Amino acid sequence: MASNEHTGEKLHGEEAIVRLLAPLAEGYPGAFGLKDDCALVTPEPGTELVLKTDPVAEGVHFLPSDAPEDVAWKALAVNVSDLAAKGAKPIGYLMALSFPEAPAGEWMSRFADGLRAAQAQFGCHLIGGDTDRRPGPVTVSITVVGSVPQGSMVRRGTAKPDDVLFVSGTLGDAALGLALRKDPSLARTWGLTPEEDAHLRRRYLRPEPRLALAPLLRAYASAAMDISDGLVKDLGRMCRASGCGAHVLFGDVPVSTAAAKAIASDPRLRTHIVAQGDDYEILAAVPAEEAASFEAAARRAATPLARIGLATAVVDVVIEAPEGQPMSLDRTGWDHF
Amino acid sequence: MASNEHTGEKLHGEEAIVRLLAPLAEGYPGAFGLKDDCALVTPEPGTELVLKTDPVAEGVHFLPSDAPEDVAWKALAVNVSDLAAKGAKPIGYLMALSFPEAPAGEWMSRFADGLRAAQAQFGCHLIGGDTDRRPGPVTVSITVVGSVPQGSMVRRGTAKPDDVLFVSGTLGDAALGLALRKDPSLARTWGLTPEEDAHLRRRYLRPEPRLALAPLLRAYASAAMDISDGLVKDLGRMCRASGCGAHVLFGDVPVSTAAAKAIASDPRLRTHIVAQGDDYEILAAVPAEEAASFEAAARRAATPLARIGLATAVVDVVIEAPEGQPMSLDRTGWDHF
Repeated sequence: MASNEHTGEKLHGEEAIVRLLAPLAEGYPGAFGLKDDCALVTPEPGTELVLKTDPVAEGVHFLPSDAPEDVAWKALAVNVSDLAAKGAKPIGYLMALSFPEAPAGEWMSRFADGLRAAQAQFGCHLIGGDTDRRPGPVTVSITVVGSVPQGSMVRRGTAKPDDVLFVSGTLGDAALGLALRKDPSLARTWGLTPEEDAHLRRRYLRPEPRLALAPLLRAYASAAMDISDGLVKDLGRMCRASGCGAHVLFGDVPVSTAAAKAIASDPRLRTHIVAQGDDYEILAAVPAEEAASFEAAARRAATPLARIGLATAVVDVVIEAPEGQPMSLDRTGWDHF
Repeated sequence: MASNEHTGEKLHGEEAIVRLLAPLAEGYPGAFGLKDDCALVTPEPGTELVLKTDPVAEGVHFLPSDAPEDVAWKALAVNVSDLAAKGAKPIGYLMALSFPEAPAGEWMSRFADGLRAAQAQFGCHLIGGDTDRRPGPVTVSITVVGSVPQGSMVRRGTAKPDDVLFVSGTLGDAALGLALRKDPSLARTWGLTPEEDAHLRRRYLRPEPRLALAPLLRAYASAAMDISDGLVKDLGRMCRASGCGAHVLFGDVPVSTAAAKAIASDPRLRTHIVAQGDDYEILAAVPAEEAASFEAAARRAATPLARIGLATAVVDVVIEAPEGQPMSLDRTGWDHF
């Protein structure tokens, strides 16, 4: 929380916070209006549940000056993105909030607004949680629950040599957006229009999980995961788990117009495209004979998708630069340690 | 983490931590050896899932000098305790770990040992999680998943006037154990034997969720919850949610021999018994006509159980002191704010 957010009336007592959050549980019977100790999830017959937890902390995953609505959106979106990559449909989420001091009422209220918008878009409800006070950064620990038809969760470690590698959307926008947050003068250096500047910032603040792809991944993909730690690192993980390699052409990695301008202005920013993370796009490996059908289905679902290369039998991940040589990437994505 | 734990070889890289934790996922197919992005839970037909998240942080919920095995045990136990109170059987848990700096290998290894012991006792597996580095205290954020037969989760807000109120085990031990951790000389003041001293400390460090009561609560209880924030506060919550009151005799609240000695030495410590929390015992409301059967079943399950009073139609929670007057309890249990 920015220090200026610490002004204004504080919310004292866990119950004041629960009152603000309770409307987010409306419509989900197993949330019991946040008035019980646990949440109850009743799986539909023939489904399994997919679970993920990925906390975000101020100063690490979001900035103190970020709007509370954006913090809330991102905290939920980064978890829902994992569900989308597994082919799952979000059901609900538990949220543990930690504050070093009682939050301002206005901050919490705006935070709840952001959650409301996010959960409406993603189709899920707040079903339980916990609030406490402890030193250290404001932390939002969300555990999300989704469902898949039995036996259909899309795995990470099941890519096969000769599978076509796809990514959704464009990569690197969030990393460039963060750079712009830290140094707004870069917009001029890169020659961005105000719209392009806003696009990159928004991609950092408001990731949009690719839920429209979830059923398509179940239908077509050998393997999938979301790209949260950068293409290089996450593709490396998929290959390691699958016992295969990958050959990717940097020139085929989709970038936005804004990102293309940034790279043109400073080619070193290529690493932002493939190695900086925070993208929350989907990486999928699809058998060659299914690739065209997958693309057609994505088009019908209005979801941008690009072929970036192939899985290989040789256990090595190569990203080939436009000049033909393998890109040198010592920093292979974001490791939290 | 105590500063002395910061000596020794550090674990660098998330993968080193995952390697240490992966054995805890063995035997649960949906954990995928912690190598996928999400966990998969396949509910047995006719069951529902019960979920809870309750993070613990160094300096707030455990002490920097606590043994890593104990920190791990307690982090899981406090969550499993909620499942037990809802009548649920633990299945698995997701765990997000946050460290301000890379943890020492020995610390993590002992932490994993504590988790192994706890999950073996509670009958569940680590099924997923996340590790990151951020400023602030070491934090262990566990989300636990349990199952109940469809329609049988025991609620908090369904107690009825004239229900008999029960608690399991003894109350106040953990609060007195914490006091002893902070001031070991109290053991002599209270006239404790070394065994009694150890008993109270252990109750603080190693809570034992009352899983043996879970099926009994489903069979007999109108309402139940675990007592994590002290009897006064948690009984107040049950009554508020149920729209009833309660009349409890302090003299009927079960205490250990060690706790009885402490109160005899300093009657002000009565508040530790009913208002300090960290007990992880079960509070249950049981219809009068079922009370004897509930007690008999608990005896067969070797679980200590005591009648402490009655739910009332008058919406007021009274704890009557041995002298006959209502106890004065300004500090009505632990509020994290």
